[in-house]
Amino acid sequence: MTTAERTELPTAQALTGQMIIAGDHVTGTGSAVHAINPATDERLQPAYAHGTAEDVVRASAAAAEAFVVYRNTSSADRADFLTAIADNLDAAKDALVARATAESGLPEARITGEVGRTSGQLRMFAGVLREGSWHGARIDPAQPDRTPAPRADIRQRKVALGPVAVFGASNFPLAFSVAGGDTASALAAGCPVIVKAHDAHPGTSELVGRAITEAITSTGMPAGTFSLLYGTGRELGIALVTDPQIKAVGFTGSRSGGTALVRAAASRPEPIPVYAEMSSINPVYPLPGALRNRGTELGRAFVGSLTMGSGQFCTNPGLVIAVDGPDLDTFIGAAADAVGESTPTPMLTPNIATTYARGIDEFEGVATEVARGTESSAPNACRAALFSTEADTFLSSETLQQEIFGASSLVVKCRDEQQVREVTAKLEGQLTATVHADESDHDDAGALLELLELKAGRILFNGWPTGVEVGHAMVHGGPYPATSDSRSTSVGSLAIERFLRPVAYQDVPQSLLPSSIADGNPEQIWRRVDGELTRD
Amino acid sequence: MTTAERTELPTAQALTGQMIIAGDHVTGTGSAVHAINPATDERLQPAYAHGTAEDVVRASAAAAEAFVVYRNTSSADRADFLTAIADNLDAAKDALVARATAESGLPEARITGEVGRTSGQLRMFAGVLREGSWHGARIDPAQPDRTPAPRADIRQRKVALGPVAVFGASNFPLAFSVAGGDTASALAAGCPVIVKAHDAHPGTSELVGRAITEAITSTGMPAGTFSLLYGTGRELGIALVTDPQIKAVGFTGSRSGGTALVRAAASRPEPIPVYAEMSSINPVYPLPGALRNRGTELGRAFVGSLTMGSGQFCTNPGLVIAVDGPDLDTFIGAAADAVGESTPTPMLTPNIATTYARGIDEFEGVATEVARGTESSAPNACRAALFSTEADTFLSSETLQQEIFGASSLVVKCRDEQQVREVTAKLEGQLTATVHADESDHDDAGALLELLELKAGRILFNGWPTGVEVGHAMVHGGPYPATSDSRSTSVGSLAIERFLRPVAYQDVPQSLLPSSIADGNPEQIWRRVDGELTRD
Repeated sequence: MTTAERTELPTAQALTGQMIIAGDHVTGTGSAVHAINPATDERLQPAYAHGTAEDVVRASAAAAEAFVVYRNTSSADRADFLTAIADNLDAAKDALVARATAESGLPEARITGEVGRTSGQLRMFAGVLREGSWHGARIDPAQPDRTPAPRADIRQRKVALGPVAVFGASNFPLAFSVAGGDTASALAAGCPVIVKAHDAHPGTSELVGRAITEAITSTGMPAGTFSLLYGTGRELGIALVTDPQIKAVGFTGSRSGGTALVRAAASRPEPIPVYAEMSSINPVYPLPGALRNRGTELGRAFVGSLTMGSGQFCTNPGLVIAVDGPDLDTFIGAAADAVGESTPTPMLTPNIATTYARGIDEFEGVATEVARGTESSAPNACRAALFSTEADTFLSSETLQQEIFGASSLVVKCRDEQQVREVTAKLEGQLTATVHADESDHDDAGALLELLELKAGRILFNGWPTGVEVGHAMVHGGPYPATSDSRSTSVGSLAIERFLRPVAYQDVPQSLLPSSIADGNPEQIWRRVDGELTRD
Repeated sequence: MTTAERTELPTAQALTGQMIIAGDHVTGTGSAVHAINPATDERLQPAYAHGTAEDVVRASAAAAEAFVVYRNTSSADRADFLTAIADNLDAAKDALVARATAESGLPEARITGEVGRTSGQLRMFAGVLREGSWHGARIDPAQPDRTPAPRADIRQRKVALGPVAVFGASNFPLAFSVAGGDTASALAAGCPVIVKAHDAHPGTSELVGRAITEAITSTGMPAGTFSLLYGTGRELGIALVTDPQIKAVGFTGSRSGGTALVRAAASRPEPIPVYAEMSSINPVYPLPGALRNRGTELGRAFVGSLTMGSGQFCTNPGLVIAVDGPDLDTFIGAAADAVGESTPTPMLTPNIATTYARGIDEFEGVATEVARGTESSAPNACRAALFSTEADTFLSSETLQQEIFGASSLVVKCRDEQQVREVTAKLEGQLTATVHADESDHDDAGALLELLELKAGRILFNGWPTGVEVGHAMVHGGPYPATSDSRSTSVGSLAIERFLRPVAYQDVPQSLLPSSIADGNPEQIWRRVDGELTRD
């Protein structure tokens, strides 16, 4: 990339309010929205006019056309493309931080970190592409002399599913949005991506969309590899998911939004997979030994995790399940003090703040309020809340088993460890489950672990679920309704698997075979030959 | 296993007509069916009374109870269990061949081969378990000194989904039925299995069910690991798929049956994955050079694949797409002669024979009949059929794009290779696509391969799609409606992936970690440590 081109990198000043369809800047013809700074209720310029079903058709036709070329780009070329996006994001960091903090009310340090997380994630997938195991290459060589029948030469590799629709999340304007984990893993797999931006941060979305478009130009990828649309989930979102060119969907958001997309995708003439990350209350289990030895410390640290980012994390610890008694009282007392001292911070949108307040009101009638954060007259402020209840009440209440998105948590007091397990067995699927255990707790912890493996995608000991490491071993997923597909993760390198399918090649001539499964291992990757992994 | 126990192995004489629920023999209280020998229309004894929703609840409760133990059995113990089933099947070969030939009308050599295929498949999954890569073990070690924040120790492995419902197929009374690929891969993954037997071969199903139950006893697995039920898809089948204890479904059968199960699974409070292998017409592409050099030979060999087993294979070549001209006429002439000389063989059931005849009647009105097999007055005989039509007619006819289950195929005549690709682009998803190409065809073949990768799960050159090798590289799957989930295969070792999900363990103490991801690699398996595969 030349210095001259660098000057075209996005700046906050240059926001246009336009969608990006295969490299073209297009003004929507639907109703227009403005981002709101939730910390001030200030309306941010410019207006973002929503797209229509016609824009979806245009973007998906361009994606289908691009797919023909993009799916066959080499691992190395796609790695360069992802790296170019990452470089562009890092270069645009100041503009991104300025706009995303204004649109989200999140602190500068958080957004700065999120830019790095987002570009780091793209670089991780570049590494996954260069390493090559993603091909899933398998070779069962011919056995011409086998009796009673000879064996053909059979080879397997994975291919991209096709154009993917991605729905940006409200709570991570960068890492789970336009160039977030869904987009990075789909692009890595060889799938063009069409993003429906979240209305809460259209300006950040435009900046990131332009960073991707720049990278497409500088690395020579086909223009239709990426499009960015604005619109409502109900209209533009459903149009996108039901478009015949779209072959998979990535979504992070509410349970109602996710299940609507799952239903729409299942009712297509050709159903397609939807990876929706939806709803989780992330139980925390302080076991007796841990409570006895460090109840106060745990109570305080718990509230640190609970109130971080106004509690607007998918992995926010919304439930504490423990055996009742003086040690649990110590924990609750320390947590209540910390909640009581907590200063309200703005939520992401006025709508989220309203929904949070309504959720708290509903809990008030059913559980005991233990503590609230300090009062605040600031707009959209999240006043943290801690409740407690008995296990029997919890089990009989649908309300108490729902997620309140924001800094609210409920302590469920159990008679004994047996009841802790009974409550756990009745929980829905979760993204995370957290155990606090000392040496003396290991028998209980082992029995609990057995249950938690059936309920959660990630199990933590002596830590807090907020903060999801991007790596090879991470699982950010879990049984329904934490996600719509427990066989996958939306964070970490395994996420690329969501957008691939295996194809077998039987007796295909060498000159026509993809290099990943050709003789001589030209890509020098790990392959399974006759069932054994080898790099030969 | 002692000699005394060996004598309890199933014999055809001892058929009871009972279901097997967690080791108990249970007589159904619903309407009773008899198997029919389709070659003679003879009614076979005993009667098999259908089960009810209560039997489903009993089997699923037992499966859920067994799951708690079975999911934690070691790879080695499950490998021994699968091997014991295989041994039992091989030991019962004579009884299986006698009953399955009578129930299916298929020749003895075919069923003898299918017993070996079924036991071989179980042994392959025993090998997969012993090799250990199925664990998907990944370790990202802690980085306590990382800045700005330390990295936790994060490990990942795969765990079993839970009890699986398997629907036996009509056309493979062994290899895709009670102990077929779905059951073998689910049991390997650590999932208990409940099979709904196909009404076409209840006696074979009982014999195989008893072979599995014997193996459960001899290897000490929990009784609820396996149950065998009889019933209709509409009642017992839907009850099974909507049972809250069932966590995944394997199915091989019709498109209408598969889509009904997919819909039922999607409408559950907790939706679950359905792996339905449904419908495929398996296009064959004889390219110009191949037609010119060996049109006659290809035409004859094609009919050999077409008429094998009365054409009752998921991979039966129901479509030939080629450029019109004298060389294609040669191919069609040779194929017509071979079809005309073909002797009708019995279809699997009277119902399948009736549906086949109806399908042929529907084609008669739209396409040109090129040849039929010889007349036959034998019951349920499949009189092979070959049709031809122009590409434009094919593209405008919904009828001609449907699968006729049985020995029927349609030659689609195209103006040129461009039209061959146009027709291909409009095809639905397929299990297989077959190219016949000589050296001179490789440019055309390359362009076609590009398209076929988007349409099919397996692409063959210069062979025939019937005959699906069981191995590590095989894909028996494909885009909708070939299957309901193109990301998987129902044949080959990759099939185990369908019944697993990843779980991450963060800072879990060594003493509580599963051995597959513990320090020191006690299972001595391949693991991905910090992104790199290693056996250390």
